[in-house]
Amino acid sequence: MRIGFIGLGNMGAAMARNLLKAGHDVVLWNRNAAKADDLVGQGATLAATPAEAAQAEVVHTMLADDRALEAVSFGEQGLLSAQPDFVHVSHSTVSVKLADRLAAAHAGHGSGFVSAPVFGRPAAAADAKLFIVAAGAESALAKARPLFGDIGQRSFEIGDTPSQANLIKLSGNFMIMSVIESLAEAMALAMRGGVDKAKLLEVLTGTLFGAPIYTTYGGLLVTESFRPAGFAAPLGLKDMNLAAEAAGDARVPMPILSLVRDRLTATVQREGNDIDWLGIAKLAWADAGLDT
Amino acid sequence: MRIGFIGLGNMGAAMARNLLKAGHDVVLWNRNAAKADDLVGQGATLAATPAEAAQAEVVHTMLADDRALEAVSFGEQGLLSAQPDFVHVSHSTVSVKLADRLAAAHAGHGSGFVSAPVFGRPAAAADAKLFIVAAGAESALAKARPLFGDIGQRSFEIGDTPSQANLIKLSGNFMIMSVIESLAEAMALAMRGGVDKAKLLEVLTGTLFGAPIYTTYGGLLVTESFRPAGFAAPLGLKDMNLAAEAAGDARVPMPILSLVRDRLTATVQREGNDIDWLGIAKLAWADAGLDT
Amino acid sequence: MRIGFIGLGNMGAAMARNLLKAGHDVVLWNRNAAKADDLVGQGATLAATPAEAAQAEVVHTMLADDRALEAVSFGEQGLLSAQPDFVHVSHSTVSVKLADRLAAAHAGHGSGFVSAPVFGRPAAAADAKLFIVAAGAESALAKARPLFGDIGQRSFEIGDTPSQANLIKLSGNFMIMSVIESLAEAMALAMRGGVDKAKLLEVLTGTLFGAPIYTTYGGLLVTESFRPAGFAAPLGLKDMNLAAEAAGDARVPMPILSLVRDRLTATVQREGNDIDWLGIAKLAWADAGLDT
Amino acid sequence: MRIGFIGLGNMGAAMARNLLKAGHDVVLWNRNAAKADDLVGQGATLAATPAEAAQAEVVHTMLADDRALEAVSFGEQGLLSAQPDFVHVSHSTVSVKLADRLAAAHAGHGSGFVSAPVFGRPAAAADAKLFIVAAGAESALAKARPLFGDIGQRSFEIGDTPSQANLIKLSGNFMIMSVIESLAEAMALAMRGGVDKAKLLEVLTGTLFGAPIYTTYGGLLVTESFRPAGFAAPLGLKDMNLAAEAAGDARVPMPILSLVRDRLTATVQREGNDIDWLGIAKLAWADAGLDT
Repeated sequence: MRIGFIGLGNMGAAMARNLLKAGHDVVLWNRNAAKADDLVGQGATLAATPAEAAQAEVVHTMLADDRALEAVSFGEQGLLSAQPDFVHVSHSTVSVKLADRLAAAHAGHGSGFVSAPVFGRPAAAADAKLFIVAAGAESALAKARPLFGDIGQRSFEIGDTPSQANLIKLSGNFMIMSVIESLAEAMALAMRGGVDKAKLLEVLTGTLFGAPIYTTYGGLLVTESFRPAGFAAPLGLKDMNLAAEAAGDARVPMPILSLVRDRLTATVQREGNDIDWLGIAKLAWADAGLDT
Repeated sequence: MRIGFIGLGNMGAAMARNLLKAGHDVVLWNRNAAKADDLVGQGATLAATPAEAAQAEVVHTMLADDRALEAVSFGEQGLLSAQPDFVHVSHSTVSVKLADRLAAAHAGHGSGFVSAPVFGRPAAAADAKLFIVAAGAESALAKARPLFGDIGQRSFEIGDTPSQANLIKLSGNFMIMSVIESLAEAMALAMRGGVDKAKLLEVLTGTLFGAPIYTTYGGLLVTESFRPAGFAAPLGLKDMNLAAEAAGDARVPMPILSLVRDRLTATVQREGNDIDWLGIAKLAWADAGLDT
Repeated sequence: MRIGFIGLGNMGAAMARNLLKAGHDVVLWNRNAAKADDLVGQGATLAATPAEAAQAEVVHTMLADDRALEAVSFGEQGLLSAQPDFVHVSHSTVSVKLADRLAAAHAGHGSGFVSAPVFGRPAAAADAKLFIVAAGAESALAKARPLFGDIGQRSFEIGDTPSQANLIKLSGNFMIMSVIESLAEAMALAMRGGVDKAKLLEVLTGTLFGAPIYTTYGGLLVTESFRPAGFAAPLGLKDMNLAAEAAGDARVPMPILSLVRDRLTATVQREGNDIDWLGIAKLAWADAGLDT
Repeated sequence: MRIGFIGLGNMGAAMARNLLKAGHDVVLWNRNAAKADDLVGQGATLAATPAEAAQAEVVHTMLADDRALEAVSFGEQGLLSAQPDFVHVSHSTVSVKLADRLAAAHAGHGSGFVSAPVFGRPAAAADAKLFIVAAGAESALAKARPLFGDIGQRSFEIGDTPSQANLIKLSGNFMIMSVIESLAEAMALAMRGGVDKAKLLEVLTGTLFGAPIYTTYGGLLVTESFRPAGFAAPLGLKDMNLAAEAAGDARVPMPILSLVRDRLTATVQREGNDIDWLGIAKLAWADAGLDT
């Protein structure tokens, strides 16, 4: 299948590589074209504009934020200026509002749109082990669906309103952040009481909390692996802000969300932009007088 | 082995039954002796006082709160007035302070003391599937250890300071409560955005959150199973208060603990004492204008 | 002086009346022109467009929100399409971002801009007892300054960056909301302990808390004067959202702001749009099991 | 009148001196007797035990915490072992529970009891400018009342349940702490936006917030007067803990109280015990990236 791929950061490059490996014709576009060199060496081709990358059955985007996705979509030579015979599959973690806007724009343009944000860190992207949460009209989903297996281990289909996939993705990131904060608080209490935080984690994961979120993130908390960042705090903060925006628009009070958002903001202020979002634990521990 | 068992509520009666089934001589004591009838019919004997139940190698207690355990321990004809040739294994969820006080008292008395709170609801107790978190001196643990397999599926040993087991138990219950609240908030956001809460849970448990805490409690939230209570809100509130007391004494700020404690208090005030601690979700949903 | 006045809600109409009483030529514009009838009867004239109202030395705007002020400023026949020989004095409680945008637009257009939000309820506006917080270039302020005495009891000048006046106004509304919530919590505690809430207020205002914010709002809490709304909860929520947006953009964690914002959101959901922002107290009291 | 006075810290010594100045016979007791030297030089006499100091019409206590007041009351040679012809006037900020316990104990003993906590810092105590919040049976209050004018500027009588005075005192200290935190947050937002925090305070106190709590504490925040402590953070934390205990016992959720208690705990952990309770602002500012 002829596929466009836009956005070659850590996540995007790995996903594009897996699509290439799966035998597709992949046309790349990236703001900084140099990042495509490696993939071009492996058989991909380079487009001069986003619109050119959209001369395909499906064009994927994996971008940093709303602004980048807006530029690629609505900017000059953007996706919405291309021939409409394509489906745009958006993997980025962006706002519910932008997903709604894109859905309307593609409907007007005659192109298809699937919102398909993913769960997983770069290592999971490299191993084609992402989780994909997809929503969109069946006609569009039908084209995107066969590709999900090339980049992920499992996909979930939510319905025909694309932005609902974004709502779930943002909810999921909120859930992760709330686990990190509550685990950090419990570890602070344990440490102050003379209990090794690894021992607390062992009991938790050995009883009711035996899920990847606790084993992975909990393990990183035990080893205090705050730098280099796997997922940088400012990106986590961006996601909490998007979740808060969605909650505000829907008038849904989410006190734990408010709390982790404030704490993550303080983390960025105290620790800088290069810390992992796990770094929220450093605040909890310093507030408890623990010199970790 | 000759075993005493004190406290025949839902949990305690099930645990005593399993000890009986395992072939031990079980001597029971309960404030309301009538509750022992069933087990006596199955071969247990009835003691007239806690001290009499302590004429055993090991005496277990499974009581509702600090006050009940204090009465049984320090009251007239209490455990600490018995011959000291026994080990007291305390399964109740009580305060860190009381565990410290009991440890000191038993040391002074010459008896052994193991703090061994459990994770699991009554159904798990009935199936001998509890998780046991135990701490105490090795000499005492050595006597208690062989019995853990009769009542639980797995045990964790924390060290020789009994109250550390209580600290972990309280931390665990805090973690459960924080999961319920954050899940309830995320579900409110999803529902307001037109997403079925079951669909959100499916994505969460299918990706990073595939642990019993999410499948079990999440499933109960999906079906809105708030009554009858499996674990009543006032009991959950008692545990959050004990965790907050431990945190206060250790000067550990735990903002999510503070939040869930306030929310659970409001749940009890608005919904009454007969609601499950999951009922905290009703507040989150009503605050979001959802008429569930 | 020839003065334009745009926005004839409860606040604006009272302010325009006072400018008229002070002897100025007042040209009105309102989206719903019928609201100007009364003032026209008292000597004001009616403009057909915002731009026509801006054919004056100073044009005041007193509008409900960002959207209304944007329409009047940037819309067809808006202020920024008028001859630039005027100073726009914006009294509305709007976002810091919009104030920055207006400052830049007027600078480009050659017109003057003063941001001058006010503190005070409609009764204070009627009595020319508003407090005015003003910021802008001295050349613009020089024209606006003489008018402040016609509508207010005192003005504060902040500097030459207009949006700083908005930041202070939003901070002030946050401070009010935080007083209401904390007072409501303290009253709940008092009432639960058998103390009349009026007695608590008497002690507070008779000791360290003898300021209008406590006497006025505290008095309204004592009489539970939640309806009709003097300042409706959705307007208060709008302001908390604007404050939160400013805090988010500046990466300033404000946990009490987060808290009152969530509580006010819940108030609107549970009580409807017609309740005063004081209604946040109803939540605090219901959460405490008080049936007020 | 013959008066006993127990507790010669900064507050107590100043109050005793004013009673002496007013012409009363003052009998002192203090755990560390050396602290009485100065007052003895001015005409007071020294008692050997609390009970001896209670051989008076009224015996005042002004002590640091529950524990100290318990020792003086219930300890060997304590007040409750004295001849019962006296009224105990308790000025300390202690728990509602202890006030209830003292009321019952004095009733049983045949002595009178008035709970009369005070608002005011040491300077106010020295100037006899304290505010006194008093509650107790009229027979007891009748003896205490004439003395209030010797130590304070104004007194408030709450009713005949002594502990209600404590509830109001704790509520008042909670209100102070909530003002400090909210002011600190608003100042952080202002500073980040380039507004001088003194300017923000000027607007607040010049409009709706013109009360001593804002002028005094606000002024200290502007000058960042965190050390030496006028009222040390650990004492403030003690009071927030007492308020939280009262709220917990009454099942009153107080989310702002929870928040300031956690923040004050973190302040003590990060800044040490010698910082003023105003130091909670340092956290708010550091969390906002402000290097004050």
